[in-house]
Amino acid sequence: MIDKLVEKIKKTKAPVVVGLDPMLSYIPSQIIDKAIQEQGETCEAAAAAIWEYNKGIVDATYDLIPAVKPQIAMYEQFGLPGMEAFKKTVDYCKEKGLVVIGDVKRGDIGSTSAAYATGHLGKVQIGSKRVAGFDEDFITVNPYLGTDGVKPFVDVCKEENKGIFVLVKTSNPSSGEFQDKKIEGRALYEVVGEYVDKWGAEVIGNCGYSQVGAVVGATYPEMGKVLRELMPKSYILVPGYGAQGGTSDALRPYFNSDGLGAIVNSSRGIICAYKQEQYAAFGEANYADASRQAVVDMIEDINHIF
Amino acid sequence: MIDKLVEKIKKTKAPVVVGLDPMLSYIPSQIIDKAIQEQGETCEAAAAAIWEYNKGIVDATYDLIPAVKPQIAMYEQFGLPGMEAFKKTVDYCKEKGLVVIGDVKRGDIGSTSAAYATGHLGKVQIGSKRVAGFDEDFITVNPYLGTDGVKPFVDVCKEENKGIFVLVKTSNPSSGEFQDKKIEGRALYEVVGEYVDKWGAEVIGNCGYSQVGAVVGATYPEMGKVLRELMPKSYILVPGYGAQGGTSDALRPYFNSDGLGAIVNSSRGIICAYKQEQYAAFGEANYADASRQAVVDMIEDINHIF
Repeated sequence: MIDKLVEKIKKTKAPVVVGLDPMLSYIPSQIIDKAIQEQGETCEAAAAAIWEYNKGIVDATYDLIPAVKPQIAMYEQFGLPGMEAFKKTVDYCKEKGLVVIGDVKRGDIGSTSAAYATGHLGKVQIGSKRVAGFDEDFITVNPYLGTDGVKPFVDVCKEENKGIFVLVKTSNPSSGEFQDKKIEGRALYEVVGEYVDKWGAEVIGNCGYSQVGAVVGATYPEMGKVLRELMPKSYILVPGYGAQGGTSDALRPYFNSDGLGAIVNSSRGIICAYKQEQYAAFGEANYADASRQAVVDMIEDINHIF
Repeated sequence: MIDKLVEKIKKTKAPVVVGLDPMLSYIPSQIIDKAIQEQGETCEAAAAAIWEYNKGIVDATYDLIPAVKPQIAMYEQFGLPGMEAFKKTVDYCKEKGLVVIGDVKRGDIGSTSAAYATGHLGKVQIGSKRVAGFDEDFITVNPYLGTDGVKPFVDVCKEENKGIFVLVKTSNPSSGEFQDKKIEGRALYEVVGEYVDKWGAEVIGNCGYSQVGAVVGATYPEMGKVLRELMPKSYILVPGYGAQGGTSDALRPYFNSDGLGAIVNSSRGIICAYKQEQYAAFGEANYADASRQAVVDMIEDINHIF
């Protein structure tokens, strides 16, 4: 799957991913009002609104970008109907040829991680059949439990040609509380980064990059530089650009000298573009066109660093 | 919610929680066969089988125990139908008066953790209504992202009288890779334990324990002792007893001198008891009675340490 991702990045000349993290407050009122009129003030209505909103954005941007990253929490908060909207979004984006990174941040002891890996990347055995659950292309994984909590995901990546991004240094303000703690002179994120390099060594794609990537926030570029060197074969998924404060100048260290090796996420900055002054002229009804323009601008902004 | 849990532990004299972590291989063949006959080799059939199996175990044990802990990964692997079986299990256990600990191990940056907290413990605003998603009583939380990734869960605990158990030292063999790493002489799990104590300080229940508990595996009793002292007001959820190798003798350090402060989980040892030699006489058809006997034996085993 890393081969498909790299190929699509090269083709679109866009090392970017659109984060499909819908909040109800982002969604134009005409979409919400219609959903509530039809289904009441229910999770079903919220899920229907999210789906329509997502579809608009995907239809307006899929030809420009290699990948999307739906954040499952934003769907899970609406219970079962929300999970249905997540699945519908994953399926639709795959139909459109996009690489889908499920931002699920799962991770547990071995047998439990195996179940998550099966449900999100693999297929589960039911009688004589193997059936897919959520079937994303990549997912994000939490490393706190160590190798036996991550290995089941790597195994499924190998069997099914899928990929993962392991949390190494996250973009949030408190990420340093544990991740920056010094262990014999090195930060915990460095130790985790070395494991990522090791876990990924057995699943290198034809493109030279591994199916095991890493999450490193745009908000910590000096650490990005260190981690780029520690994990030369891992793609870095970079959240925190735009709304969280990361700038394109800060992104250079995340890329390798081949101009590859990183993919930058923007969520709010794209999907909620129409609410920003810069794109306000599009108006609420044309929110998807505003998102398209924001994607064009983001690609230009990031490509100017090369 | 910690008050309800402590009250139920005192009433049942059973500091135990039954882990509802169904694997298809655990489920008696008559249940699976019937489900597949009715719905084919589908996730729907698997979910129906899991639900029937769970219901049998809950009906046979709910009067003996304070709480259950469904592991969401075991449901999530069957996609949307699996998630429905999870929700049905949560709702049924709550109807039966059980405290439900959703073993979901969620955790992300602040706004995303807030969505998980809303979906699993709180209520989401839709128009003028506040609607519950999965609505467990407690959930497990991963601390890797630090305070701003955990705080949204604590906030919802305060608003909704719910609780969390934060992963501190997990029961799996590789848990030491990161969790045991020494930071200025102290292990990472100790640093995390101190944060748990701090996070929990603002949500102490009438019983004297906090709504913020911790997960510490039964397989590491010396660390359990250290953590018991570092987090005196946090309930410790102890996985790893039985099938994972932890013994009741090793459990003493997890309890406070009041005989409270810990709740011990057993999953496979209870729900799959009928497959063990000790309970084989019950037979597959009476799997739920075997589970009841295994609960009785587990309670006796644990109570002999006091």
